[in-house]
Amino acid sequence: MSEQVHAMAVRAREAAQRLAGVSTAVKNTALEAMAEALCAHEPEILAANAEDVSAAQERGTAGAMIDRLTLTPARIAAMADGLRQIASLPDPVGEILEGWRRPNGLEIQRVRVPMGVIGVIYESRPNVTADAAGLCLKAGNACLLRGGSEALRSNAAIARRLAEAGERAGLPPNSLQLIESPDRETARALMRLNGLVDLLIPRGGAGLIQSVLENATVPVIETGTGNCHTYVDPTADLDAALEIIVNAKCSRPSVCNAMETLLVHEVIADEFLPMVEERLAAQGVELRGCPRACEYLSSAIPATEEDWKTEYLALILAVRVVDSLDEAIAHINAYGTRHSEAILTEDYSAAQRFLREVDAACVYVNASTRFTDGYEFGFGAEVGISNQKLHARGPMGLRELTTHKYLIRGSGQIRG
Amino acid sequence: MSEQVHAMAVRAREAAQRLAGVSTAVKNTALEAMAEALCAHEPEILAANAEDVSAAQERGTAGAMIDRLTLTPARIAAMADGLRQIASLPDPVGEILEGWRRPNGLEIQRVRVPMGVIGVIYESRPNVTADAAGLCLKAGNACLLRGGSEALRSNAAIARRLAEAGERAGLPPNSLQLIESPDRETARALMRLNGLVDLLIPRGGAGLIQSVLENATVPVIETGTGNCHTYVDPTADLDAALEIIVNAKCSRPSVCNAMETLLVHEVIADEFLPMVEERLAAQGVELRGCPRACEYLSSAIPATEEDWKTEYLALILAVRVVDSLDEAIAHINAYGTRHSEAILTEDYSAAQRFLREVDAACVYVNASTRFTDGYEFGFGAEVGISNQKLHARGPMGLRELTTHKYLIRGSGQIRG
Repeated sequence: MSEQVHAMAVRAREAAQRLAGVSTAVKNTALEAMAEALCAHEPEILAANAEDVSAAQERGTAGAMIDRLTLTPARIAAMADGLRQIASLPDPVGEILEGWRRPNGLEIQRVRVPMGVIGVIYESRPNVTADAAGLCLKAGNACLLRGGSEALRSNAAIARRLAEAGERAGLPPNSLQLIESPDRETARALMRLNGLVDLLIPRGGAGLIQSVLENATVPVIETGTGNCHTYVDPTADLDAALEIIVNAKCSRPSVCNAMETLLVHEVIADEFLPMVEERLAAQGVELRGCPRACEYLSSAIPATEEDWKTEYLALILAVRVVDSLDEAIAHINAYGTRHSEAILTEDYSAAQRFLREVDAACVYVNASTRFTDGYEFGFGAEVGISNQKLHARGPMGLRELTTHKYLIRGSGQIRG
Repeated sequence: MSEQVHAMAVRAREAAQRLAGVSTAVKNTALEAMAEALCAHEPEILAANAEDVSAAQERGTAGAMIDRLTLTPARIAAMADGLRQIASLPDPVGEILEGWRRPNGLEIQRVRVPMGVIGVIYESRPNVTADAAGLCLKAGNACLLRGGSEALRSNAAIARRLAEAGERAGLPPNSLQLIESPDRETARALMRLNGLVDLLIPRGGAGLIQSVLENATVPVIETGTGNCHTYVDPTADLDAALEIIVNAKCSRPSVCNAMETLLVHEVIADEFLPMVEERLAAQGVELRGCPRACEYLSSAIPATEEDWKTEYLALILAVRVVDSLDEAIAHINAYGTRHSEAILTEDYSAAQRFLREVDAACVYVNASTRFTDGYEFGFGAEVGISNQKLHARGPMGLRELTTHKYLIRGSGQIRG
């Protein structure tokens, strides 16, 4: 098995060398053709998916997992739309990032180029097959996809049609390959193909990401968890703050940029916390408070140390009263996952300090943390939100799937 | 032991949070003070080093290793000069990399910030203690250094004086810490401090780097090997080509940007290879050729498959005759380590294709590969040359020891 994955990676590297020279026009035509192929082969993809779903049901798989696994005509159309949107994004490859001339006359340019071969390990959602392939290919990379075993038939049907359509439109053969034996051995092999795989992206839960961190020897980008905070300063506009808090907690509680802990300065706690409670109660949010917060929140249960660390991804909010901006920043830097953090304030110096001292991918003043997203930032489709610091931090779009090289044009220079 | 390393990393993180806010002026003053401290305590550092050297000699350590380990007044002065040079470089922290306004009025800036805590694992050269500390601190990072056991007394003396001088000049305590139990356990602990160590840089031989790749769960940047090529096209100016070849091979054969394999187009092989042989023979270079190259190189011995893969780091050159530019590019992409590659040509289209199709950090036209270096590129002091594609590729200076964060200024925006 691991030899088979190695052979696929060798083919992917050959494809990557050719892909790096494929024009934007051909890549876009291929993405459009791939979108059409998904629509044209909808019955075949739905039939493969139905087999996956019924096998999962027979194994007694939980409902939420079945939901993630299930494709519908609308979900297939959404995959196709995603590919068309990727086609419409600017091509990052070829951008001259900087350039200068050295005293000896050497002309140095730093130019954006594809990574090469990108591996993606993901779990049960078959739409990742199309999303990840589209982003990798647009950025000029060959991709090696390894989805979850429960979605194998669906992924195989999607990948086959995408690969066919892409190749017919001019992409090199093997630009997109799916590993069709999704067992531990193939995953582990993919994690250790140094020299063949330039970047590995795990997309899934904490268990998958931990396994990749433990086993991978190739470079990895983690797309991570978001234990996001909002801190309400004494000078905040409390009406605006209420709207932001409701938005950050309730607009989509299951995503990584949703707020998980609210920090409120003590001088406004008695006025503001009952307002918060009333608005969040109407949305069905459960509150867990520090002892002082519980004085003002009649429905709150006491928060434990564990609550400050937890990414609920649900309609639960931890609430803590703090004495100062310092205490708020210290809490966030201690418990946050360096994803998205907000201060609500009208105090210029407090805003400046928060922006400077909070260590996170995205730091907000007077806005909802829910904006941390490739589309909302203006990047278009994204691979995920990175909360590591190396290479990519924050929303990862096409640009983060590229690297650079230095081109140096000389006229006979030698080093003295 | 691993608890001790963990405790050091916790202190380093506290220091890093404070260091991120330290002004450029204070950082520069601290670097100057550190340089002075090395000079002021030269006798103490030399005495500690003498103990390391005599212990190494008693263990029968090889001469090259003793040389790397040994400090002299001149080498201490060079360390101090290095710190002063780092002080004179521009501070990368705070640069606004880009910024834009979204249709909803959110103002987004991407700003350069320190990484946080950087771990450096290195081998016997004690000067790395000062070089790595200076670069990390200038970029606003706390550093955790773990040198080789054979240099422990030297490293401890250097690190103690640097840390004292830096703190007296205004750096936060624990900005620079040396792990004083350099065994396998502390190295392994340092590799697995996720959440505390933001970046780990191994500096040393292939064995060290492989061990870090195998064991690390924190993000790593490899500074790698250079199996560098120069390809001579039929249209090359052969006199200039000779100078470049002599420079690339002989000016400093032990470094990663030295040429290891020469590729020559068949139509000029009979004329050019004897010229190369004459010039390189005068420098004492041993030649290993493919069968066709050996026809024109009277002193060459036959090259094996292993020769194409080898970074000699010595006065040895592999030589291969190729039929075409395609074959040259294919050879480089198959055997190169993606470091530095050059074409010598007067053919515009050949130069353009080589620049585009060769997959390496630095691709040259008509210049020596020896220019791949932080100083030569104009970056100043460097941590090393990265030949990975993630985050840093090519010479790694201060800029590569930073990350970015997004600052988002709003006026009450919520996501619809």
